[in-house]
Amino acid sequence: MQDSRTSEATPSVSITKQVMFFDTDCAAVMHNIAYLRFIEEARTLLAGELGWELSGMADSGLYPVVVRTEVDYKRPAKLGDELVIHGRLESIERMRFWCSFTIERPADSTLHVSCRQSLALIQAPEMKLVRLPIDWPDKYPDLYRKKS
Amino acid sequence: MQDSRTSEATPSVSITKQVMFFDTDCAAVMHNIAYLRFIEEARTLLAGELGWELSGMADSGLYPVVVRTEVDYKRPAKLGDELVIHGRLESIERMRFWCSFTIERPADSTLHVSCRQSLALIQAPEMKLVRLPIDWPDKYPDLYRKKS
Amino acid sequence: MQDSRTSEATPSVSITKQVMFFDTDCAAVMHNIAYLRFIEEARTLLAGELGWELSGMADSGLYPVVVRTEVDYKRPAKLGDELVIHGRLESIERMRFWCSFTIERPADSTLHVSCRQSLALIQAPEMKLVRLPIDWPDKYPDLYRKKS
Amino acid sequence: MQDSRTSEATPSVSITKQVMFFDTDCAAVMHNIAYLRFIEEARTLLAGELGWELSGMADSGLYPVVVRTEVDYKRPAKLGDELVIHGRLESIERMRFWCSFTIERPADSTLHVSCRQSLALIQAPEMKLVRLPIDWPDKYPDLYRKKS
Repeated sequence: MQDSRTSEATPSVSITKQVMFFDTDCAAVMHNIAYLRFIEEARTLLAGELGWELSGMADSGLYPVVVRTEVDYKRPAKLGDELVIHGRLESIERMRFWCSFTIERPADSTLHVSCRQSLALIQAPEMKLVRLPIDWPDKYPDLYRKKS
Repeated sequence: MQDSRTSEATPSVSITKQVMFFDTDCAAVMHNIAYLRFIEEARTLLAGELGWELSGMADSGLYPVVVRTEVDYKRPAKLGDELVIHGRLESIERMRFWCSFTIERPADSTLHVSCRQSLALIQAPEMKLVRLPIDWPDKYPDLYRKKS
Repeated sequence: MQDSRTSEATPSVSITKQVMFFDTDCAAVMHNIAYLRFIEEARTLLAGELGWELSGMADSGLYPVVVRTEVDYKRPAKLGDELVIHGRLESIERMRFWCSFTIERPADSTLHVSCRQSLALIQAPEMKLVRLPIDWPDKYPDLYRKKS
Repeated sequence: MQDSRTSEATPSVSITKQVMFFDTDCAAVMHNIAYLRFIEEARTLLAGELGWELSGMADSGLYPVVVRTEVDYKRPAKLGDELVIHGRLESIERMRFWCSFTIERPADSTLHVSCRQSLALIQAPEMKLVRLPIDWPDKYPDLYRKKS
């Protein structure tokens, strides 16, 4: 980390969402799939930070797509809960990057969900894999892994 | 109705669905929006009966799209309920047609939901309105209304 | 309207939402069911204005439930669109009330969707119909209809 | 594995689903979250095999809940695709068990998604963690791990 003086800050975002009826199920808690919609909203904002704005994306046909999701459900959220979703760029490789997310309830500092997602860049309509921006290793040296 | 001898039977479909956790909410009943997914599955099958198969639709870019939905919620369904969705072509005009649906629980003959949807034909990507098949008034004379 | 001097202003709300990937479908437009989630978020806020806060609702078991939805799809919204959902109390009866909604894109003043929903009050877990607050006819005299 | 003669066969299920419009997004492929609904339907059937029928579950208040999901997206499915979801019990511990799933398109033997989910038993409304059935280690000796 000593040499990060020229690098940019780690891209990160926070959004606040309230648990709606359609986010819950008859066990009286938030449904496991609904958290992923919250995470997708945070990830969309994060993608904007990374240079991929939602408006214009359909025209360009260049989409960051989810390759893998790992999600841990720790405590159930309930109807009306105000939840904060934090997302940040976790690491980058040549062809894919990882984002990590937490979903917390600030009212009592409860961690409800943690999640990691790996994404790749795809060019529609051929759905061809595209290399990540070549300036990323310089931009985010602390996050760069030489794996892929 | 006397002269319907050359017409085809009214297109109709039935599907059976079981209420999943993600269809319910924390009031312990099926969520109002979830019924519309059930109806969309029935309507998709009905569209197949009318000549628009789901496979191939994305290639042709010719989509029947919902223009109006009217839905009445009569009795709440619950987790695990087996529901039958009936759908049928209700009436046709020049540029749009109506389908009607019921969602019933055969176990006790309860009517849970009734619904009508009006659809039009759209050609993507311009999203241009397209006339309905010209042989429909002959094919379904009892359903033809000269309104639109 | 001359005699509304003692009545409260018509309860109304506005929220802004951006169209996410999961709101769209492969016809490259917002999916017809997704608009109803937007409307539910506005309605939930409107219910708060009417005295039914989302937090606490599950404890009380008193839920405003949708009895009927009428929705007209006028123009398709697209990925990334910023939409404003307006909702207001439209009319009240003894046992049910109507809310009306519009979904517009302020960027070009397009009206995408208009919607009316009728709701009733239900006491869980018996799901018994409950009378609306008795002070509503006085509170909203212009909205009161003696039908139900 | 020598002594598995008294054990039952590994519980497993298969369901077939067709990709609906609401399962797709404007990148013209199935949306990453939609696969998890398919998996939940398979898992619900699998839970039935394991002794937890969906009907009656809300009355008992004993729910198998998802604790962790790992999902790999390998190839995008498209509108109208017929997909087969295979699910099976993968391993059991004292307090949790793992299920694994694949989503394949039989038409061309494509593997679209693989997924593992860990589940625990929860007693509502307290949402208390409950031990798995004590006869499981004997019933599924090949699947038993002494970890948790």
